[in-house]
Amino acid sequence: MPIKEACGLLGIYSSQPDESIARTVYYGLFALQHRGQESAGIAVSDTRSIKYHKGIGLVSEIFSEEDLEDLKGKMAIGHVRYSTTGSNCLSNAQPLVVKYHSGELAIAHNGNLVNAYELRNDLEENGAMFHTTTDSEVIAALIARSRKSLIEAVIECMEKIRGAYSLLLMSKDKLIAIRDSNGFRPLCIGSYNGSYVVASENVAFDTIGAEFLRDIEPGEIVVFDENGISSHKVITSRKSLCVFEFVYFARPDSVIDKVSVYQTRWKAGAILAREHPVDADLVVAVPDSGNVAAIGFSDTSHIPMGMGLIKNRYIGRTFIQPSQRIRNLGVRLKLNPLKDLINGKRIVLVDDSIVRGTTMGQIVKMLKDSGAKQVHVRISSPPITHSCYFGIDTSTRRELIASCHDVESIRKLLDADSLGYLSIDGLIESIDMKEKDLCIACFTGEYPMQIPREGRKYLFEKR
Amino acid sequence: MPIKEACGLLGIYSSQPDESIARTVYYGLFALQHRGQESAGIAVSDTRSIKYHKGIGLVSEIFSEEDLEDLKGKMAIGHVRYSTTGSNCLSNAQPLVVKYHSGELAIAHNGNLVNAYELRNDLEENGAMFHTTTDSEVIAALIARSRKSLIEAVIECMEKIRGAYSLLLMSKDKLIAIRDSNGFRPLCIGSYNGSYVVASENVAFDTIGAEFLRDIEPGEIVVFDENGISSHKVITSRKSLCVFEFVYFARPDSVIDKVSVYQTRWKAGAILAREHPVDADLVVAVPDSGNVAAIGFSDTSHIPMGMGLIKNRYIGRTFIQPSQRIRNLGVRLKLNPLKDLINGKRIVLVDDSIVRGTTMGQIVKMLKDSGAKQVHVRISSPPITHSCYFGIDTSTRRELIASCHDVESIRKLLDADSLGYLSIDGLIESIDMKEKDLCIACFTGEYPMQIPREGRKYLFEKR
Amino acid sequence: MPIKEACGLLGIYSSQPDESIARTVYYGLFALQHRGQESAGIAVSDTRSIKYHKGIGLVSEIFSEEDLEDLKGKMAIGHVRYSTTGSNCLSNAQPLVVKYHSGELAIAHNGNLVNAYELRNDLEENGAMFHTTTDSEVIAALIARSRKSLIEAVIECMEKIRGAYSLLLMSKDKLIAIRDSNGFRPLCIGSYNGSYVVASENVAFDTIGAEFLRDIEPGEIVVFDENGISSHKVITSRKSLCVFEFVYFARPDSVIDKVSVYQTRWKAGAILAREHPVDADLVVAVPDSGNVAAIGFSDTSHIPMGMGLIKNRYIGRTFIQPSQRIRNLGVRLKLNPLKDLINGKRIVLVDDSIVRGTTMGQIVKMLKDSGAKQVHVRISSPPITHSCYFGIDTSTRRELIASCHDVESIRKLLDADSLGYLSIDGLIESIDMKEKDLCIACFTGEYPMQIPREGRKYLFEKR
Amino acid sequence: MPIKEACGLLGIYSSQPDESIARTVYYGLFALQHRGQESAGIAVSDTRSIKYHKGIGLVSEIFSEEDLEDLKGKMAIGHVRYSTTGSNCLSNAQPLVVKYHSGELAIAHNGNLVNAYELRNDLEENGAMFHTTTDSEVIAALIARSRKSLIEAVIECMEKIRGAYSLLLMSKDKLIAIRDSNGFRPLCIGSYNGSYVVASENVAFDTIGAEFLRDIEPGEIVVFDENGISSHKVITSRKSLCVFEFVYFARPDSVIDKVSVYQTRWKAGAILAREHPVDADLVVAVPDSGNVAAIGFSDTSHIPMGMGLIKNRYIGRTFIQPSQRIRNLGVRLKLNPLKDLINGKRIVLVDDSIVRGTTMGQIVKMLKDSGAKQVHVRISSPPITHSCYFGIDTSTRRELIASCHDVESIRKLLDADSLGYLSIDGLIESIDMKEKDLCIACFTGEYPMQIPREGRKYLFEKR
Repeated sequence: MPIKEACGLLGIYSSQPDESIARTVYYGLFALQHRGQESAGIAVSDTRSIKYHKGIGLVSEIFSEEDLEDLKGKMAIGHVRYSTTGSNCLSNAQPLVVKYHSGELAIAHNGNLVNAYELRNDLEENGAMFHTTTDSEVIAALIARSRKSLIEAVIECMEKIRGAYSLLLMSKDKLIAIRDSNGFRPLCIGSYNGSYVVASENVAFDTIGAEFLRDIEPGEIVVFDENGISSHKVITSRKSLCVFEFVYFARPDSVIDKVSVYQTRWKAGAILAREHPVDADLVVAVPDSGNVAAIGFSDTSHIPMGMGLIKNRYIGRTFIQPSQRIRNLGVRLKLNPLKDLINGKRIVLVDDSIVRGTTMGQIVKMLKDSGAKQVHVRISSPPITHSCYFGIDTSTRRELIASCHDVESIRKLLDADSLGYLSIDGLIESIDMKEKDLCIACFTGEYPMQIPREGRKYLFEKR
Repeated sequence: MPIKEACGLLGIYSSQPDESIARTVYYGLFALQHRGQESAGIAVSDTRSIKYHKGIGLVSEIFSEEDLEDLKGKMAIGHVRYSTTGSNCLSNAQPLVVKYHSGELAIAHNGNLVNAYELRNDLEENGAMFHTTTDSEVIAALIARSRKSLIEAVIECMEKIRGAYSLLLMSKDKLIAIRDSNGFRPLCIGSYNGSYVVASENVAFDTIGAEFLRDIEPGEIVVFDENGISSHKVITSRKSLCVFEFVYFARPDSVIDKVSVYQTRWKAGAILAREHPVDADLVVAVPDSGNVAAIGFSDTSHIPMGMGLIKNRYIGRTFIQPSQRIRNLGVRLKLNPLKDLINGKRIVLVDDSIVRGTTMGQIVKMLKDSGAKQVHVRISSPPITHSCYFGIDTSTRRELIASCHDVESIRKLLDADSLGYLSIDGLIESIDMKEKDLCIACFTGEYPMQIPREGRKYLFEKR
Repeated sequence: MPIKEACGLLGIYSSQPDESIARTVYYGLFALQHRGQESAGIAVSDTRSIKYHKGIGLVSEIFSEEDLEDLKGKMAIGHVRYSTTGSNCLSNAQPLVVKYHSGELAIAHNGNLVNAYELRNDLEENGAMFHTTTDSEVIAALIARSRKSLIEAVIECMEKIRGAYSLLLMSKDKLIAIRDSNGFRPLCIGSYNGSYVVASENVAFDTIGAEFLRDIEPGEIVVFDENGISSHKVITSRKSLCVFEFVYFARPDSVIDKVSVYQTRWKAGAILAREHPVDADLVVAVPDSGNVAAIGFSDTSHIPMGMGLIKNRYIGRTFIQPSQRIRNLGVRLKLNPLKDLINGKRIVLVDDSIVRGTTMGQIVKMLKDSGAKQVHVRISSPPITHSCYFGIDTSTRRELIASCHDVESIRKLLDADSLGYLSIDGLIESIDMKEKDLCIACFTGEYPMQIPREGRKYLFEKR
Repeated sequence: MPIKEACGLLGIYSSQPDESIARTVYYGLFALQHRGQESAGIAVSDTRSIKYHKGIGLVSEIFSEEDLEDLKGKMAIGHVRYSTTGSNCLSNAQPLVVKYHSGELAIAHNGNLVNAYELRNDLEENGAMFHTTTDSEVIAALIARSRKSLIEAVIECMEKIRGAYSLLLMSKDKLIAIRDSNGFRPLCIGSYNGSYVVASENVAFDTIGAEFLRDIEPGEIVVFDENGISSHKVITSRKSLCVFEFVYFARPDSVIDKVSVYQTRWKAGAILAREHPVDADLVVAVPDSGNVAAIGFSDTSHIPMGMGLIKNRYIGRTFIQPSQRIRNLGVRLKLNPLKDLINGKRIVLVDDSIVRGTTMGQIVKMLKDSGAKQVHVRISSPPITHSCYFGIDTSTRRELIASCHDVESIRKLLDADSLGYLSIDGLIESIDMKEKDLCIACFTGEYPMQIPREGRKYLFEKR
């Protein structure tokens, strides 16, 4: 459940100079805030030069009225992300804006390159210097090294980089949207009043009043400039959309590559109820990650649903060190059990996934302390057995509880009365998409491309 | 639905000097943050003097590690509130700390006095000067004027003030908790490790690891000092607990005067389903206010429930002026319809109440724009026809849509296919409490005490 | 030298509503910033109500463009002050704004009452409550208690309070300037474009482009309202203007009660050169307090002057804890000796006063370490032997080096080659004013009124 | 007078790991704050990695206790600078920290390269990308491109760059101090407790308790590492130390290349008195730039000196827009004439230089308005006729009043009774250094190296 996604992207190419373009990006980023809550930024181009503002924190904390006033133009790209902590973190915030032989270039990146370490080494050996510790700067450096036109340089760069990348590039007069040839991360196009919008999820279109046009295809380069919109597609490989976008990351009201996230989660819950039926009194979701699957489970099992766990929505980003006594309360600061509802009942506890198992164990204990007669844990995805190399921070493999324990061992560790995971087939069935078009490596270890060896991975993760 | 509550209170009398007492209050206030999000403060006494820190914003924005370090002591009181805007607002934040003949006194207040205007006028005529525009300072002034001991001064004050007040008072060596004789606002006692806690809602006990002991009774004065806990009860009148604590304000996991808020809301939804049945395909809650009643409605009507409206949890406190185009999108910035789920369906839309009707009308339109065949609005409380004078900001009467429209007119204004409000009897039935113990004046106009005339009310609200 | 003054005042009564009145006060307060650097505030009245903004720090740190935008009106008063530290300090910032039977009242105060403790006790015994720990709030409380008109209430108040007070009071439609009957602190009137200005020193008029009109007389009450300017004078006593305004506090370009501060200081230096001549090579001032007297000394003794000590103007308000090694450098963080100039020379070191002697001792040592052959200390005022009770923080008597040491002992403690203080007669001669019109109690112990006994003084200072 | 200098540098190589190394740099930067007041930063290395903190504003505004806590290590470099305004400014703050093939590198730079534009173009053509608009990043890029050891790469870089540069470089285990072969900007070495310090001016040593060791020679590279201190000198050319360091920039208590700044300024004033004698009553300095020369003038001419202009030290960094009326007061916000002193007198007004003449004209008018019978302007340097390309922001040539007006025309524009500039010979005489070792191009146009043509200059200055 507490998995950190990498980033959210939003770009606008306006039909005409737009005084409020940064405001529109600002509101669009709110709709994507769930994809990254540690830093954010907006860059705009007025076709002559690029200005930007970035900061650490939530979108609402970073931008003042005055900051947005300063950002007027015809194009804009915005980004929300998780950054690493420490004094350098602001320099890692995106969009990354660099100057090179053809002028200025702004980059916003969602994903993770698997060969960034080698590429960066090569570039450094050839005299490149870097200001950040992001793989996004490697992309910028590759483009800066090319002597070709921007589009050709982008294609050249895509031939070198391997991994997951949905990208927005902005030069002073062009907005370019790119989705890697595997299509790991979503990216789609919308429009309003003759302006184009590109976003990680279509929910951003709803928030700013734009219409969804279409998804960007894997390996596609879409260019917006004074000549309108044009598409290039040069690299193809097997599609492998990240299954976790459906399981956890994307907002339930998003539709990715024509598949509704909500329907997928509901179906996962419904299939889970068939695969792991249980005689119980109440279905309780772990809010908010288990909400939709719990409805599917309840609707299918005809076991009534109840809000047995209440989430405190204000605790989130506090940094005040609690006293030891408070710290021992653990998950109770964020989740409170509804004792009256739980007491004496046999509970089906539904969540989307288990990563390390610590939180789930605390929740099971909390429900039993509140009088639950039994707690049956149901997970709407299969056991996570392998690390992700394509942009999801699922921790190292040894921390994944399912990488070294079988289901019965996990059940014992959680002290649950029963534990049922959705099967891989069940998960595929819940997503209205061909299995071969999905990356399910975190459940199977069958990665869609060669991944770094362990040694390298360590170095890579260090950055 | 968008009703502003007045305040939340939390007090601790520790069994021994406690370096982390302010930290405990801090985490307790998080659990009460839903009761007031505009300012907050904590005052502590080390039995020699009182220190405090207050600010504008959420609890998490106001206190730094350093602020809490400075607040060590044996007693503490904390407060969250809605304040009026403008340059004076910090001075209105609570706890209010004053110096008078017997030393220092800190006051935290939840509620609203109906005779504050008269009392303040009298005090000013007798030479009092005021620093704030709160009725809480009137209470302080009355106590400062008394020549008696603190407890006797409190009793004397309670004989003069009329209205709603749950109060925490702290002198250098005493913590006093008071609930007005009508018991308008909740207040309860808990304990941990031999320390006492007083809070507006018992959920705060869960968050800080305290046990619930009992509710404070209407008209009761509870004193915590070196002699332990003692109770005084001098004034009695008919109990009239605010029904809106159950309908909207309190957290669903709270239990008020032995009645579970969650159960009450579920039953309200269930009775609503019986009172206003409808042939439909999907029950959709307005999140989060309609969530529990919607479950009750769905469980009773056997119409499946779906998360047809997704709430953006990041939009809340932003102050950036949207462009005109974005502003026209209205409620869409905060709520997004799940089109796939809604399209072609007959929707039962459940919320807890309708105040002015503007938002509800936008939601109905949004659902229809998303393809809903029908939208049947169901409200889990009766029409609000009268203003509240006891601590709830329901706006003036003329703004209340139900004060001047009958149900059919409201239905037309909302453009709903049908509209059903829970009956008063239904509401009473849903709350496991005698009708005579509740204040339901906002639905009936039968106030439990004399209220200010209109002319005065204006002056009063101006402050 | 490092003596803390109490406060600076600035008030404007505009001939017509003035959108930029707060801006004018803001710039005027800059000219008075030397009188108080710990907090500041501005209150304005638009004849209907009073608004204000206060803060901790320098004027430039407290007010934003937006804060000043909010403060429009026809009258305004501003204040700069030294506040006590701690969590309560903002509440002690001025102007103090209170509400009472006749409406709102803003107060700005420069000085110190000697009977505030008794008055406050009496008021508390009669039911008053206080929000601050300032004696200014006692003045507000006395006015609020009066049943008479504002002017009469002010006169009544002046009959009760004893001590030093230059005051600005502002009701919604009147600006009142008051100077205590001893005239301890300066206060003068200026005008521009038909508007009136009142300020602690006339240098504020220069900064905002106003003309000096006249000094306010001791015991005078000047009222500015829609009827123009009127004067009341009800209380008289012996004038006793604080001599330290000339010695140290006031800016050298100020003229107080028709006497130029610069000329006074120059003459003090000149007389000092005659009273304590010395055979030396270079006159060096302790910047900035000794600057003007050093010129007078040099001009008279014909010993050339040199900038032997360079002051670092950026160190001032930093709160970063230095490492032990840096801390040991003491005064060197702020003052750097110009070795080339000092080396091998016999130095006359001129400053305005010695309080505790610590800093002066460090400076003498620093000069000798830089190669000075001799250091002759010359002080342009007599030894400070008694504490001030009228608004100057000269520390308690036992900390005053001259209260318990004779000149020769002090010379030894400073390790100076000679030490000469200006005589009392010399000081009086330097000020073009009758001795009987000055308070020189800090040099003589002959206070112009009864002062609190020691025991009480402690309580008083505690606040 | 209002000339903006570029930067100040401070580096420390500690004899052992030092928890308070950043604190020492912090206090040292205070002593150099006069060299740059718009941004500042500190980077430290603990021999494993480099951490840094930078910000916009004064040193005292940028660093908190916590920021300094985080910066522990064995080496540190700090920087104060003037940055350009706008949203990008933080990225231009120094030290600049980059990653390249040999690890991390921190750079702090004082000066200006004349061929940065060409070098940057070349680098971009070869694939370099830049994050800032500083010429310092060009230096970093050249080093990153080299395949040699750091020292050799630095030498290679110095063979390519032309112009003014005092540099501090820090890798994880080396601190390198460099002064360009012309020695345009000062740089010197000190020590304390076995640790080495490098600073732009030796006054920083006084502030942190270090001893001056020696100046770094033009073209010298000094390396501090675990082997101690070593010196490399590979490039030589004619020395051309910037004369304006003596005239205006450096602190009077600094000694540059063995010449005392104070003595130089005093002599300049003395020679000025001989070159342009005048029959007058009072010498008045424009504070603080004219202070020392005015003493020299007074001592030589025997005309007494007086503080006729009082500077308001608090106005400095305020950004509040004054009202039109206040704005018209111009220089009066910062300087106030002492009327009593000036009235009826013939004034000699001394300043160090005239750039555009606007301020000087306002001062002359202000003195005459205050009653001065005559105002004789004396400038302790020759007329500035040419722009600087080596790190001083003297504006473009057309803005220099002396580039297009002769002395008599300037006198008329200033409305002065007479105007005398120090001759070039007089200036050289005042500085105890050979003429050939100084850059006096701003007075003569004879630049010590080829400078950019006008067209390029524009592009260059745009950056």
